[in-house]
Amino acid sequence: MIFRVGLIGKGHVGTSLLELFNRKKNLIEKRLKSHIVLTAVFNSKGALINQKGLDPAKIIGNNLKVTKMKEWQENISVIDNISKENFDILIETTPTNVETGEPATTHIFKALNHKIDVITSNKGPLFLYYTQLKSLAEKNMCFLKFDATVACCLPIISIKKLLLGSEITHIKAILNGTSNFILSQMSNNGLNFTSALQYAQKLGYTESDPNLDIHGLDAAGKIVILANELLDWKKTIKDVQIEGISDITLQKIKTASVNGCKIKLISVAKNNELYVKPCLIKPSSLLNLDGNLNGILLQTKHGGPIILIGNGAGSFEAASAIINNLIEIIDNKEHRTENN
Amino acid sequence: MIFRVGLIGKGHVGTSLLELFNRKKNLIEKRLKSHIVLTAVFNSKGALINQKGLDPAKIIGNNLKVTKMKEWQENISVIDNISKENFDILIETTPTNVETGEPATTHIFKALNHKIDVITSNKGPLFLYYTQLKSLAEKNMCFLKFDATVACCLPIISIKKLLLGSEITHIKAILNGTSNFILSQMSNNGLNFTSALQYAQKLGYTESDPNLDIHGLDAAGKIVILANELLDWKKTIKDVQIEGISDITLQKIKTASVNGCKIKLISVAKNNELYVKPCLIKPSSLLNLDGNLNGILLQTKHGGPIILIGNGAGSFEAASAIINNLIEIIDNKEHRTENN
Repeated sequence: MIFRVGLIGKGHVGTSLLELFNRKKNLIEKRLKSHIVLTAVFNSKGALINQKGLDPAKIIGNNLKVTKMKEWQENISVIDNISKENFDILIETTPTNVETGEPATTHIFKALNHKIDVITSNKGPLFLYYTQLKSLAEKNMCFLKFDATVACCLPIISIKKLLLGSEITHIKAILNGTSNFILSQMSNNGLNFTSALQYAQKLGYTESDPNLDIHGLDAAGKIVILANELLDWKKTIKDVQIEGISDITLQKIKTASVNGCKIKLISVAKNNELYVKPCLIKPSSLLNLDGNLNGILLQTKHGGPIILIGNGAGSFEAASAIINNLIEIIDNKEHRTENN
Repeated sequence: MIFRVGLIGKGHVGTSLLELFNRKKNLIEKRLKSHIVLTAVFNSKGALINQKGLDPAKIIGNNLKVTKMKEWQENISVIDNISKENFDILIETTPTNVETGEPATTHIFKALNHKIDVITSNKGPLFLYYTQLKSLAEKNMCFLKFDATVACCLPIISIKKLLLGSEITHIKAILNGTSNFILSQMSNNGLNFTSALQYAQKLGYTESDPNLDIHGLDAAGKIVILANELLDWKKTIKDVQIEGISDITLQKIKTASVNGCKIKLISVAKNNELYVKPCLIKPSSLLNLDGNLNGILLQTKHGGPIILIGNGAGSFEAASAIINNLIEIIDNKEHRTENN
C-alpha cells in the first residue's frame, strides 16, 4: 500500500520530524510493508508539493533554501490544499496558540472533514475542541492521534487501549516540565523564582509565553486531554481549578524541606474534578521527580498504580511520538485491508 | 462476533481472572461489540465444559464444589481437549516451572499448532522456548500475548508497538519484586537477609521455590523476555550472567548507604549482553524504588529514557493484564474482519 503524507509546519518539531523520517524511512517501510510518500510540506510562506514524493534529505539539506527547490510554490493557501487528492495523512506541527487554537484547529477540522487521518503535536486544538474533534474523527472513521501533545516522549494517549482491563480510575501527574525545572532550581540550587524562570528561558525550556507554564494553563490543558482520553470524561480547560507557581517563594520551599518534602505543580483528575496546583510531595513519592521530567500516575482498579516517567519536551521527542503514531495508523490500516 | 475462551489453571491467577471476567464481561462486550463465551475451565482434576458457555459467577460461587456442577467432567485430558472445536482463545495460568516449562509449554504449543490464540501468565515456556513459540505463533498467524509474565500490571510487552519510532536501544530494570522487598527490608528496617526472606515468605511474596527470586533466575528469565521482545534479540536464559542477592549482608548495605546509595537487583540488556546483579543505585535514580515495585527503564534513541513503574506481582494484577491482552486480541480481530 502507499500512504501519502502532508506536513504543515516546518519549525523545530517539523524539521526534527523530517530528519527522523529521513533516517528511519527504510526501516519503517520494511516493518510495515507499505510505502510512505511525503507529498507536501507547508511553511508560513508557501509549500513544497510533489505527488511523486519529496526527498526529506534534500529539504533538510536545503534548510534555508527550500524556496529555491523546484517543488516550491510561493504563497500557496494551506487550507485550500488540504484534500484527499494531496495526501492521506496530515501531520500538523504549527506553533501552539492556546487562546484560539489557530491555525491548527482549522487545518485539522478540514482534514477530518475530508476523511484524512491526522497526527498533531499542537495542543491548542485539543485544549479547546477536544470533544468536537474526536466526534468528527469517529464519525468519519479517521485516526486522530496526538501523543506528542502530553509528556511527548511517553505513549500516554495510545497506552489506553492496552489498559482497558486494568480500568484507570484517576490520574495524578507532573505535566509541565518548565514549572518542574523552575521548582527544582529553587529547591536544589537556591535560586529565587525570577532567577529560576530566567534560567529556564535562557535554556529555551519555556513556551514563547512563559505565563502558560508558570500560571498552570499548560498543565491544565494537558490534564483535560488525559481525563477526556483515559477516563472518557468530556471536560474543557474551563472545568479546571488552576493555581500556578508564581507565588512560590524560597521560604515556602524551605519550610516544605524541613520534612524532606518538595513543592511540585501537580495536575489531578479524580472524582469528576480537575485541578492543577502546587502540592507537597514526600521524598518517597513516585512523583518526586526533578529537572524537566514529566511523570504520570495512572491509578487503576485492578492493576494498582502505573507510573510513566519521561522527558516532557524536546523537538526530537515530539517527532518520535509523531513517528510512533504514524506507524500505528499505517499498521492498523494494513491489518484492516489485509483480509479484503 | 463470538469468541470462545478456554482457561487452564484455576489457582490464584485463574480464579482472579474468573472474578474479573465476571465483573467486567458486560463492559468489555459493550466496548468490543463481540460476545465472549467461556467454554472450558480446566484444573488439575478435571474440567468444566459447556459449548454454550459457562457462568463465571457460578464457578466462583461454587469455589470448592466445581466437581458438583453439572458441567463437571472428571479426569479429563487437558491436552486432548485443546482444539479449535472447543475454543478460539486459550488462557494458560498453570503454575510456573522454570526448569521444564511444563505443563504450560505443551499446552501452548498444541494451541498454537491448532491456530488457537494464546494468552499466558506462565513465565516458564517463555524463559525456555521464547523463539520457538514466537515463530510458531507467527507462522500460524496467531496471537501469543504474555504481558502478565513481566512486571505484571505494566503493559511492557504490548507497549513495543507504540514505541517503534522512538527506537528502544537498551533496558535497565528491577524485575523481581521479592528481591526488591527483601533488600528494602534490610535497608529500611535493618533486618538481616534471612529474616527479610522469612518475612517475604510469610507475606506470600516469594515463588514456591524462593531460590528463583534470590538467586536471580526469575529476573534473568524476565530480562530475556524483554530483550527478545523489545530489542528483537534471540537469547535464552543461558546467555544471562547472573548474580543473586544471597551474598548481600547488612554491612554491604550500610556501606552503600554512606553515600545515600541503595543496593538493588538490577537486570540489564545492553550492547548484546544480558546480566542480572546487585548494583549501587543513587538516591536520585529513577530505579531507586522500594517495596515490591518493579521498574523498567527503556532507553530510546529519539525519545530519551522512558520509565514504567508498577506492582510486579499479584493475582488480580496478573488477571487484569490477561484481560488487557484479551481485549487487544479481540479488538484486532474485529478490525481485521470489519471490512470483509
